[in-house]
Amino acid sequence: MKTQNWVIDYRGPHRANMYRLKETLVHTRSQFQEILIAETFDFGRALFLDGIPQSSQLDEHVYHECLIQPAMMACAEPKTVFVAGGGEGANLREILRHPSVEKIVMVDIDDTLVALAKKFLTAWHQGTFDDARVQVLHEDARAYLQNTSERFDCIISDMTDPLKGSPAAYLFTQEFFELVKSRLNPGGTFAMQAETTNIGEHLAHVSIIKTLRQVFRDVRPYHAWVPFYGLSWGFAVAADHDLGEPYAEARLQQTLQERRCTDLQFYDAETHRHIFSLPKFLRQALEDPEAGMIIRDDALLEVV
Amino acid sequence: MKTQNWVIDYRGPHRANMYRLKETLVHTRSQFQEILIAETFDFGRALFLDGIPQSSQLDEHVYHECLIQPAMMACAEPKTVFVAGGGEGANLREILRHPSVEKIVMVDIDDTLVALAKKFLTAWHQGTFDDARVQVLHEDARAYLQNTSERFDCIISDMTDPLKGSPAAYLFTQEFFELVKSRLNPGGTFAMQAETTNIGEHLAHVSIIKTLRQVFRDVRPYHAWVPFYGLSWGFAVAADHDLGEPYAEARLQQTLQERRCTDLQFYDAETHRHIFSLPKFLRQALEDPEAGMIIRDDALLEVV
Amino acid sequence: MKTQNWVIDYRGPHRANMYRLKETLVHTRSQFQEILIAETFDFGRALFLDGIPQSSQLDEHVYHECLIQPAMMACAEPKTVFVAGGGEGANLREILRHPSVEKIVMVDIDDTLVALAKKFLTAWHQGTFDDARVQVLHEDARAYLQNTSERFDCIISDMTDPLKGSPAAYLFTQEFFELVKSRLNPGGTFAMQAETTNIGEHLAHVSIIKTLRQVFRDVRPYHAWVPFYGLSWGFAVAADHDLGEPYAEARLQQTLQERRCTDLQFYDAETHRHIFSLPKFLRQALEDPEAGMIIRDDALLEVV
Amino acid sequence: MKTQNWVIDYRGPHRANMYRLKETLVHTRSQFQEILIAETFDFGRALFLDGIPQSSQLDEHVYHECLIQPAMMACAEPKTVFVAGGGEGANLREILRHPSVEKIVMVDIDDTLVALAKKFLTAWHQGTFDDARVQVLHEDARAYLQNTSERFDCIISDMTDPLKGSPAAYLFTQEFFELVKSRLNPGGTFAMQAETTNIGEHLAHVSIIKTLRQVFRDVRPYHAWVPFYGLSWGFAVAADHDLGEPYAEARLQQTLQERRCTDLQFYDAETHRHIFSLPKFLRQALEDPEAGMIIRDDALLEVV
Repeated sequence: MKTQNWVIDYRGPHRANMYRLKETLVHTRSQFQEILIAETFDFGRALFLDGIPQSSQLDEHVYHECLIQPAMMACAEPKTVFVAGGGEGANLREILRHPSVEKIVMVDIDDTLVALAKKFLTAWHQGTFDDARVQVLHEDARAYLQNTSERFDCIISDMTDPLKGSPAAYLFTQEFFELVKSRLNPGGTFAMQAETTNIGEHLAHVSIIKTLRQVFRDVRPYHAWVPFYGLSWGFAVAADHDLGEPYAEARLQQTLQERRCTDLQFYDAETHRHIFSLPKFLRQALEDPEAGMIIRDDALLEVV
Repeated sequence: MKTQNWVIDYRGPHRANMYRLKETLVHTRSQFQEILIAETFDFGRALFLDGIPQSSQLDEHVYHECLIQPAMMACAEPKTVFVAGGGEGANLREILRHPSVEKIVMVDIDDTLVALAKKFLTAWHQGTFDDARVQVLHEDARAYLQNTSERFDCIISDMTDPLKGSPAAYLFTQEFFELVKSRLNPGGTFAMQAETTNIGEHLAHVSIIKTLRQVFRDVRPYHAWVPFYGLSWGFAVAADHDLGEPYAEARLQQTLQERRCTDLQFYDAETHRHIFSLPKFLRQALEDPEAGMIIRDDALLEVV
Repeated sequence: MKTQNWVIDYRGPHRANMYRLKETLVHTRSQFQEILIAETFDFGRALFLDGIPQSSQLDEHVYHECLIQPAMMACAEPKTVFVAGGGEGANLREILRHPSVEKIVMVDIDDTLVALAKKFLTAWHQGTFDDARVQVLHEDARAYLQNTSERFDCIISDMTDPLKGSPAAYLFTQEFFELVKSRLNPGGTFAMQAETTNIGEHLAHVSIIKTLRQVFRDVRPYHAWVPFYGLSWGFAVAADHDLGEPYAEARLQQTLQERRCTDLQFYDAETHRHIFSLPKFLRQALEDPEAGMIIRDDALLEVV
Repeated sequence: MKTQNWVIDYRGPHRANMYRLKETLVHTRSQFQEILIAETFDFGRALFLDGIPQSSQLDEHVYHECLIQPAMMACAEPKTVFVAGGGEGANLREILRHPSVEKIVMVDIDDTLVALAKKFLTAWHQGTFDDARVQVLHEDARAYLQNTSERFDCIISDMTDPLKGSPAAYLFTQEFFELVKSRLNPGGTFAMQAETTNIGEHLAHVSIIKTLRQVFRDVRPYHAWVPFYGLSWGFAVAADHDLGEPYAEARLQQTLQERRCTDLQFYDAETHRHIFSLPKFLRQALEDPEAGMIIRDDALLEVV
């Protein structure tokens, strides 16, 4: 019999997902969080932060293609991109598919995580940390944006859960979204991970969308089912220009071709239609004035 | 401290979903299967058969609306419906929304399960077992279809997993699909649950679709994320007429309105677009001649 | 596959024992506690109160013979016995082995538990609830002793863990032990369950023994390994006469024979020697003036 | 929230002990077995081999004092000791307490395990691997004894479970015990770990004792409760001289004093009495001619 070494992800006190580990590659604590990189049996190599599943070899492309591609596709000729978080480096890989990109500034506060990702998550970043166009900084992403006068064509927020007390919480507020908007070039786009859209657990997502709508003219929620999480995961893309045009099916197909993004594993025009079509209960919650809240620096999300 | 009574759904040896029970309502063994109906903390009341989650109060509507509505919508004026399995009775509820329905024959081999569903799963069937149009029989559904000369406008297959050795296995074969086709009225439709579409676990689904395509002219796979399963779940609708017409967005919206099916919780025209748009990897697998197999009575699926 | 229905006994946040259930016989909440009686696979029928394993068919005789027999053996001719708690009724079975017994007063506050035990735990009580010598009352055991002027030859305390806030907590205090002593006939004995003696978890046991020693002249701790708990379990017998004499090996053997107690499964003279010989670390803790505390009504145990 | 990283020790399909890990120090596979050394929350540092708990910082002294001390105490002036297995090195620590010891030959087949123990289990071996009297060899212990003509005063067998198919199985047979006997000096003693004595799981223990009795004149089973295992664990000491004399309480106390073994944590004369007094069911099984079997090279134990 082999060691039954399991990560148990208690999603609240009454429910859990269990992942059996084949081998623990690194289990350490950085200044900011507990980092576990392990070989699982069913999902391949996987990253857990503070015990919460972040991404797995089997399906990280679902998450990362979804986070990056819609924002990039809606940007006419993305040259400069800012990424908050996303220490695995998979966002870099997705962004660099676009031939127009000249510069990526990635700010992840946790240098330990990035160093471990460089070493253990090569299937994620595929060497893109070493691309000359990439600049990686370890500081608070919000502070960085506040202190820079630089503007970007595309801004990506790939933060961990906005748990109260975590610095991530302040990257989900109206004040942060206004800062983001002020750092976008005209025609720029913003995309972010926006918490689960699971029935009964979707209020954080609804609040994020409603808060974005205080700031941006066109905000589009979307979602994809991530097997590793055992959850449907929400995202949002936001801009001050109309996103209908770049997302028209024929136009999207053309952009994908022009940018030679036809070898993605998950995302294409039909997948776009899939992930941007919301189920009825979610649309109703987004239209319900009683559901969710506007998130502000002094009124943070209560996420369990 | 309260009893920590958990159902652990081992999805293979290396992975599990844990559900904490608040109260066990019934835990028994019928002639055919082990039946557990319990109050969970996070999903409300729930049904497990042979330890496998079947449906929960929180999201059974996702599964049952998806299984029933696309087939009914594609049927011009459904009067007679045949349902194989689905002991909870929620399929009856969904079918009886359609005013044209005159008769439902439901064949579920397990009378113990149906008796327990009548008593404990009222939120599922909502009394429809007692509707004068409903006839419930306890025998083998395939044998019933073989022995009847009756034809139906709509046939639904809501079977448990086609595990080798289970009688359900023979309701996933080309021979069964040919029998179904022979029992459909002209313009009739067939829908079935078609196993998970999770990345890396999607081959049973692919095989089911390919087998249906041996028999029916228009076969459409679709899928929805079911939180209670922690899985994306596959379905298929099949017919010998073109399904493109009834599923055109404007037309579908009109049918929903005419049949007063506008108070569904999950399904409407946009949800239809969502569930019928497949992610790229799944489309590729469906087109890959190497993926999956044609399921026949003498070549059954190997499902773990 | 069968339902994997497990009771998980979290012994603190970092450790748990898992018991797979075959069948749930009753899972309910009385006025006082949550009651689960189930068939386990490895321990046969079993009782859990508030999620904590109480006794199993496989080894309840270890616990109940240990709780009852030493006190009865040290009592010259036990005629009247008082039992606090012990709703399963197995204590009655053990007490009634002694031919001199004329009367047992059993006070268990929870009439629901006793009613369920009568129905489902027949292997425990073996019909002794119906013995004419047995009187069962449902009230607070401490209040009963306070309000009666009756005296007993033997008093047994079979309470659940003295968790702060539970009424059981007040049956582990010096005040309660003084009350017990005042209700014993001359030559009478008192025995109680006295919490685990596991290394590193033995301080509650030590405190109980030290508190008893404030009150009784001869206090003897003992302990037995209970497989169902996965723990070594502590007990104590206390009296105001010297227990050395009745426990001398030859004398004990003679008493066992005279009372025809030679068909016990666990307890005899050699087992007595086993359970009353303490391992070194436990003796050291009992002699260490720094270890444990005197438990009083206004200074209750802090048990995790 | 911190990572919930648990080792689940499935003791058969229906029961498990869960240990939460704080940190994984090493998790690897040697040529012979899977080795996991981790910091647990409740037991301190701990060793698991092939997923089975071996020893923990909290209570390894219970196991190792029990395995070594009775055999050493029954040996008049132990000079040479042979140890089969026991890669942690704690046996060396216990043996070297005895001032007469001149030489220990320890044969553990797994050099990887011993190297990791040297590095990570210093609290176990306490540097004794470096003692000039200690010789560590990595080969099959049975083969070593077969090929040597050397004789020892004391032989210790500290093998993993005699699972069929594992090389350990052949160190539990009558043939092996005869080999051991032929390598003992006159007055020599043999001790071994002898599997669990838990009720209902004690037949392997019974078989080992019965097999030893085919070979040695005086065989004494004993047992101790090991919290880390959640099990009562069996041992045996065997010799061709009468063990009654060295184990007489006064004599044993004298030996302990002469050898300055009075600072042990678990073992002393009263603990000796505790562990060598068997509960009734176990004595009955040992006397029952139907219980257990004689283990031979061609009739190995069937251990689950």
